[in-house]
Amino acid sequence: MAERITPRTEDYSRWYTDVVTQAPLADYSPVKGCMVIRPLGMALWENMRDALDAMFKATGHENAYFPLFIPESFIRKEKAHIEGFAPECAVVTIGGGKELEEKLYVRPTSETIIYAMYAKWIKSYRDLPLLINQWANIVRWEMRTRLFLRTTEFLWQEGHTAHATEREAMEETLKILDIYDTFAREWMALPTIKGIKTAAERFAGAVETYCIEALMQDNKSLQAGTSHHLGQNFAKAFDVKFQAESGGWEYAWNTSWGVSTRLIGAVVMAHGDDNGLVLPPKLAPTQVIIVPIFKGDEKQRVVGAAEEIAATLRRAGLRVKMDGREGIRPGFKFNEWELKGVPLRLELGPKDLDAGQAMSVKRHNREKAPLPLGSLAAAVPPLLAKIQQNLFDAALARREAATHVIDDYESFKRVIDSPGGFLRSHWCGSAGCEEAIKNDTKATIRCISTDAAEERGKCLRCGEASTRRVHFARAY
Amino acid sequence: MAERITPRTEDYSRWYTDVVTQAPLADYSPVKGCMVIRPLGMALWENMRDALDAMFKATGHENAYFPLFIPESFIRKEKAHIEGFAPECAVVTIGGGKELEEKLYVRPTSETIIYAMYAKWIKSYRDLPLLINQWANIVRWEMRTRLFLRTTEFLWQEGHTAHATEREAMEETLKILDIYDTFAREWMALPTIKGIKTAAERFAGAVETYCIEALMQDNKSLQAGTSHHLGQNFAKAFDVKFQAESGGWEYAWNTSWGVSTRLIGAVVMAHGDDNGLVLPPKLAPTQVIIVPIFKGDEKQRVVGAAEEIAATLRRAGLRVKMDGREGIRPGFKFNEWELKGVPLRLELGPKDLDAGQAMSVKRHNREKAPLPLGSLAAAVPPLLAKIQQNLFDAALARREAATHVIDDYESFKRVIDSPGGFLRSHWCGSAGCEEAIKNDTKATIRCISTDAAEERGKCLRCGEASTRRVHFARAY
Repeated sequence: MAERITPRTEDYSRWYTDVVTQAPLADYSPVKGCMVIRPLGMALWENMRDALDAMFKATGHENAYFPLFIPESFIRKEKAHIEGFAPECAVVTIGGGKELEEKLYVRPTSETIIYAMYAKWIKSYRDLPLLINQWANIVRWEMRTRLFLRTTEFLWQEGHTAHATEREAMEETLKILDIYDTFAREWMALPTIKGIKTAAERFAGAVETYCIEALMQDNKSLQAGTSHHLGQNFAKAFDVKFQAESGGWEYAWNTSWGVSTRLIGAVVMAHGDDNGLVLPPKLAPTQVIIVPIFKGDEKQRVVGAAEEIAATLRRAGLRVKMDGREGIRPGFKFNEWELKGVPLRLELGPKDLDAGQAMSVKRHNREKAPLPLGSLAAAVPPLLAKIQQNLFDAALARREAATHVIDDYESFKRVIDSPGGFLRSHWCGSAGCEEAIKNDTKATIRCISTDAAEERGKCLRCGEASTRRVHFARAY
Repeated sequence: MAERITPRTEDYSRWYTDVVTQAPLADYSPVKGCMVIRPLGMALWENMRDALDAMFKATGHENAYFPLFIPESFIRKEKAHIEGFAPECAVVTIGGGKELEEKLYVRPTSETIIYAMYAKWIKSYRDLPLLINQWANIVRWEMRTRLFLRTTEFLWQEGHTAHATEREAMEETLKILDIYDTFAREWMALPTIKGIKTAAERFAGAVETYCIEALMQDNKSLQAGTSHHLGQNFAKAFDVKFQAESGGWEYAWNTSWGVSTRLIGAVVMAHGDDNGLVLPPKLAPTQVIIVPIFKGDEKQRVVGAAEEIAATLRRAGLRVKMDGREGIRPGFKFNEWELKGVPLRLELGPKDLDAGQAMSVKRHNREKAPLPLGSLAAAVPPLLAKIQQNLFDAALARREAATHVIDDYESFKRVIDSPGGFLRSHWCGSAGCEEAIKNDTKATIRCISTDAAEERGKCLRCGEASTRRVHFARAY
């Protein structure tokens, strides 16, 4: 059953795949580049979806659903967009048994089809802002698969909004960036760097791309969400015009933004350990696992009590499972639920029952403490909240320890190789230096942090003047 | 803004399209055969999804996600299946800029890819039953689009289960049929006929297909959900074998089952009227609309009170909107919310406030009654429950009035033309008579009701002996 999990220090990449396939969160499929999301992975994604969806709806967004297929002529309308996406598309050429007159692209993102509809729906400033989100599957051709991180098909949400003014569109772009940041911190227990992408890393068709970046345990960065200010690029390509309050016709201002199932990969890599997953309590499909420990005729008493505890905790709003399987040793069960990342385990044997307690064991640090049975419903929720905070604090401490202020290129090259992490260095702003640094070191500018203070300095590579440090890292 | 809605008696089909596009629930897209589901339609689908999902999970099912693409060699493995589905598939032949070695079919249903995975996951009787559901998009090529009812792409759920015995698989098939029936009755306010499909109407690859059929207001039947007993057909095609408790290797027994966004079409056609949608309260995205009625400086007082009422009702767990828009007449607002099908309207003017009441208006019958403001939180939930029951009762009464027991073919031909409905007639069981009746009358056997009593009779067409009546109808 339980195969060996490669330790992180031995091979971080294999550790990741071992955890994902054994938990199991996902599996490889016989379709090249496509994964199967297994029930534990899907339950985790549904919890993420529900939390984000509530945040979107609380800020006035509604969900809709647009076609999977995009006619070739649509995807060609925005020049930068087609250049960015066409090479990685899956293309339908046969439908209903016949060769199609126009090829259909399986959506790699939905700007083109959505703005074509917006052109039809938006007539007046009264129709604005239009704030729509969609939960959907997306296809971008990949040859080398990494479960959740790089797959041909993945699940995501994509928001697409239209506004009467540039200012409102920019406010929306930043509002969503804040939602992503809040979600990462409060739900995923993941500290992020908020910032702006350089032109080289910008979304194909955007004026400005904002992102959140998070550091994984191997000191590589993972882009966890992006929010694009699209200006009027797509509005002009698709003729999204509205009659302004003042009377004339104007092009709408757009934003688009998204997060995907790669966030599951981020949770695995940010918190997992050599025993498997470590899930943040707020997202964990099972928050508490109760393992009754019994021999022979003790069973009825112990399992009965475990069931009662489960019912009590469920009434307190918690997601709880009770593992009453027979013929499986407690130690085996402990390992299995640790692999699945359940934040809190309650062990319950006859002696615990006699003493009126259960032994609690925290997944992330294996800290044990007896809890009185009478106060479990009151004690467990704050305990889970504390675990959630502990995970965040640990991730933040790891990131702080792996963030380096570097001013000379030789140190930069050495540190990026080992130990890696975020390297905060000055950059002159030229695409040439950015490209050269990438070629020399495989490090890219993850973002220009929106929180970075102004600071005079000299570009790491060329020595030209710079006014702020940027975050370099190797990335997923 | 509000265009004319074609009355049902004038042209039922245009009435349907008018309601769907004006509410708006959906829109045509520039992609042939594909629709756009607009926010109201999507919110309705999400409410359906959440209710069904809870029923699936309560019966031990888990969600997963399988690839959108199915390699051609997979879809060819089950003979009846490929014959049934291949002609209506969209096929990807280009990926990542290159011609693919093997064509990829966009899933028209996922049996083949799912059972290929089950073959990998199922090793022992201990792995059974495997109870998995997926919420996904599906593509089946259609030339003539009818929003929600017939579109190239649609959303659905598809359950796929594996069992150790035929009996368990059959129990699962019927359990799901009951869930669909319960959902239709209790959530959609839609009475259904539960039954078995004839061989001609069976799912491609199934041993037996069960279904629920519901009558629309134009007296045509709509298949609202199907549950298939697949026997070992797919297990044998994909080598889904397990080691039995007794030691030997056996093929698993499978079921699959699904409902789709066509259920939205069913809600529209079962309850809507010439003013637009009529939504069942349990599914309505907005259950109560509050319309404050004010002139000039009455605004603050009336809108303030309306907001308070909205907050009170939301605390009572209801989905409520308050329409405080200025410059739009109350009558216009009434029409708009009627078009959108909101079950209950509360009108609130200065005189109502003086009298300590709001005027309630039920959407489905326009019944008006004053409600004391102080008891709204207590009064509205039972009022919505009563509306839900009224809708069901009305739909059931319509169906009963449109169900005819017919014993001679000439009457059958006359009645199926007008008024239509369910024609309960004897059928000998031969595919030949079924086909001939279909060719003569456009009526098909919707199902052999599982509730039908045995009754000796003679086949409508050939006069051979029959032991029970079946439900004939013209269908969507």
